[in-house]
Amino acid sequence: MSAIDAADIAGPDGDVDALLACLGKAARAAGTALGGASTEAKNAALLAAAAEIRAHAGDVLEANATDMRAARDSGLDAARLDRLALDETRIEGIARGLEEVVDLADPVGDVIAEWTRPNGLRISRVRVPLGVIGIIYESRPNVTADAGALSLKSGNAAILRGGSESHCSSRAIHACLRRGLAAGDLPETAIQLVPTSDRAAVGALLRLHDYVDIIVPRGGRSLIERVFEESRMPVIAHLDGLCHVYVHRDADPEMARHIVLNAKMRRTGICGAAETLLVDKAVAGTHLPPIVDDLIGAGCEVRGDDSARALDHRVTAAAADDWTTEYLDAIISVRVVEDLDAAIRHIETYGSHHTESIVTGNDAAAERFLNEVDSAILLHNASTQFADGGEFGMGAEIGISTGRLHARGPVGVEQLTTFKYVVRGSGQVRP
Amino acid sequence: MSAIDAADIAGPDGDVDALLACLGKAARAAGTALGGASTEAKNAALLAAAAEIRAHAGDVLEANATDMRAARDSGLDAARLDRLALDETRIEGIARGLEEVVDLADPVGDVIAEWTRPNGLRISRVRVPLGVIGIIYESRPNVTADAGALSLKSGNAAILRGGSESHCSSRAIHACLRRGLAAGDLPETAIQLVPTSDRAAVGALLRLHDYVDIIVPRGGRSLIERVFEESRMPVIAHLDGLCHVYVHRDADPEMARHIVLNAKMRRTGICGAAETLLVDKAVAGTHLPPIVDDLIGAGCEVRGDDSARALDHRVTAAAADDWTTEYLDAIISVRVVEDLDAAIRHIETYGSHHTESIVTGNDAAAERFLNEVDSAILLHNASTQFADGGEFGMGAEIGISTGRLHARGPVGVEQLTTFKYVVRGSGQVRP
Repeated sequence: MSAIDAADIAGPDGDVDALLACLGKAARAAGTALGGASTEAKNAALLAAAAEIRAHAGDVLEANATDMRAARDSGLDAARLDRLALDETRIEGIARGLEEVVDLADPVGDVIAEWTRPNGLRISRVRVPLGVIGIIYESRPNVTADAGALSLKSGNAAILRGGSESHCSSRAIHACLRRGLAAGDLPETAIQLVPTSDRAAVGALLRLHDYVDIIVPRGGRSLIERVFEESRMPVIAHLDGLCHVYVHRDADPEMARHIVLNAKMRRTGICGAAETLLVDKAVAGTHLPPIVDDLIGAGCEVRGDDSARALDHRVTAAAADDWTTEYLDAIISVRVVEDLDAAIRHIETYGSHHTESIVTGNDAAAERFLNEVDSAILLHNASTQFADGGEFGMGAEIGISTGRLHARGPVGVEQLTTFKYVVRGSGQVRP
Repeated sequence: MSAIDAADIAGPDGDVDALLACLGKAARAAGTALGGASTEAKNAALLAAAAEIRAHAGDVLEANATDMRAARDSGLDAARLDRLALDETRIEGIARGLEEVVDLADPVGDVIAEWTRPNGLRISRVRVPLGVIGIIYESRPNVTADAGALSLKSGNAAILRGGSESHCSSRAIHACLRRGLAAGDLPETAIQLVPTSDRAAVGALLRLHDYVDIIVPRGGRSLIERVFEESRMPVIAHLDGLCHVYVHRDADPEMARHIVLNAKMRRTGICGAAETLLVDKAVAGTHLPPIVDDLIGAGCEVRGDDSARALDHRVTAAAADDWTTEYLDAIISVRVVEDLDAAIRHIETYGSHHTESIVTGNDAAAERFLNEVDSAILLHNASTQFADGGEFGMGAEIGISTGRLHARGPVGVEQLTTFKYVVRGSGQVRP
């Protein structure tokens, strides 16, 4: 049953749990078919979908105009309106994004490890898709294409639930993906969009553990918190990206300036942006003032402890909750610490296990930091803004995970797979 | 705070949630220390614990006698009494089990992958422990030592909750583990035993998500179901081991006989024991009768569909629920199927995604089975009883997982770890 059929049956006033169960059943069946699909078929579907996006750019823009009108009328803020808006350039970006997923290696079927036992049994650990992925995201129409494409390439069926403000845009994009799947001779239900903007659909998707193997929420803290609270399925996500840069006493002062400025200000709204700067007491007097000067010059508000404030009167007083706040904005908290141990303790106490960087010329100190800090990504002498699947060379990603199990750090096509053991024998029985 | 202190504070009548929170906090602290512990320290602790088990065999036997008396008085069945009972041989087995974990490679710190980006960033994926593992198991005292040792070797802190009937035995064994940890200069709280036989402790452990990263239940279906239902932490376990052997039309009849007999009867109570036999219609007349004869000769009850019954009058009628029953006993269900597709469909419909074997001389058929069946372990021409970490060459295991995420199949020390990314740079900032 296609998503369209399900919508016809349940309708906007239908029982949303029954509707989602329809989607779930179709996704499970599509996932089984997709698990055995060739790389060629998946790539053909992605290329055809990209062509459909370009050919139907007018329809997508028209749908987006409808969303934008409603969003403006309901008083959506400027940042959200910007994320919702599409134009020809952004549509071309969506099409190119689909083509870039074609270029990613297909992880399905990869033999991760292989060995032979003394009794002659040949054991292989082989990559297979996770199954069915439920993806819940904000009103960003491009995610419909990105998330659908990554799921498809990794052999997973996807149930997409985008923000209700983007519903018309997402439907138009999804129609292109469906035609692409058909062109690649793959089930159109391999990528389904929840065909209602009813907010109850999120709860229904979180209850769909009979059909969905994993939930990937992308959005603000309240969404992620709700998903962790309500979902009985495993969740891949990060709640906060409270990233730290630690300037060690043996840091090169110029390198520290460049890294801190980039880590905080290159883009302030991404999860890898630095939110707290720690500086060793021994070099605070020399290293911190030029860093603060750079930051304030770039339009960043600097909130510090007493030691930091004593060095520059423009630094305002940090309150206790500044150490636990992910600003996602041009604000940074600064603390002067006694030494490496104090820095590690601060990160352990206040951090979110996402991404932290140490700046130092002292390799022993760097190794201790890299070993002892328990975060998904630890950097030495590099900006926290490298916390990104593309920058890691893993290609597009569906998000960054701060969970400890299964997938940690950037979640690309490979992280959307699991494995099974295949054992080849010649009649062996166990003694 | 050690487990003993926690017991002293909360006492048998204390608030069991408060008691578990004490254990949890201590485990989190111990886990952090253990994550950085050397292989030598962990091995020294394991060897010292083995020596303690041998030196205090008398204490352990005495504690076990107390448990056995109470268990007999309360009318525990023979199978459970056997699992509870210890003697000198079994105690020596426990000590040797600890020494075998010494011989396993330490996975912590292994560099799983390493690459350099065009901008010079060197990225490594490095194995780290999961953190704190909560292990809930039946009244089998040896699991106290096995589970504690595997957790320790993989750098994880463990909170153990054994069945209440084995409480005295487990405490005596745990005392040896604690002295071993002290001898290796590791925190004694790295392995804690819930110091009360109060059954409410299981629920309290399942609520301990602030301190426990993963739950590993080992036991019967009702325990596992309860854990999946109540735990908000990820669970590594299998609910059922409903394993199939499929005799394809191109199977060698002698090989099929040996494999089926072994898969069913070598040990009937383990999760890798075959529960259902599928035989191609084309060869049922020739291949099935000797197999049934072997099984019945070995004391196995055979329940079959009409086609199987027509071949041997000793085969009783299988009911619908025979296809979904994990007997864990000398009973097997037999179904004659049309072909490979029908066999795959049967397994997909009734199986538990644990372990399945195809017997065939036809490699193309074997490859289709290995590719298309979605179970943790698929075998070609070998007994399902090989579903075991030791038989896979992975050493001791804490169980077999039928979950799709993180760990699938045998869960040994390597599967009790996760990873983090370590990125080494020279001042790179993101453009």
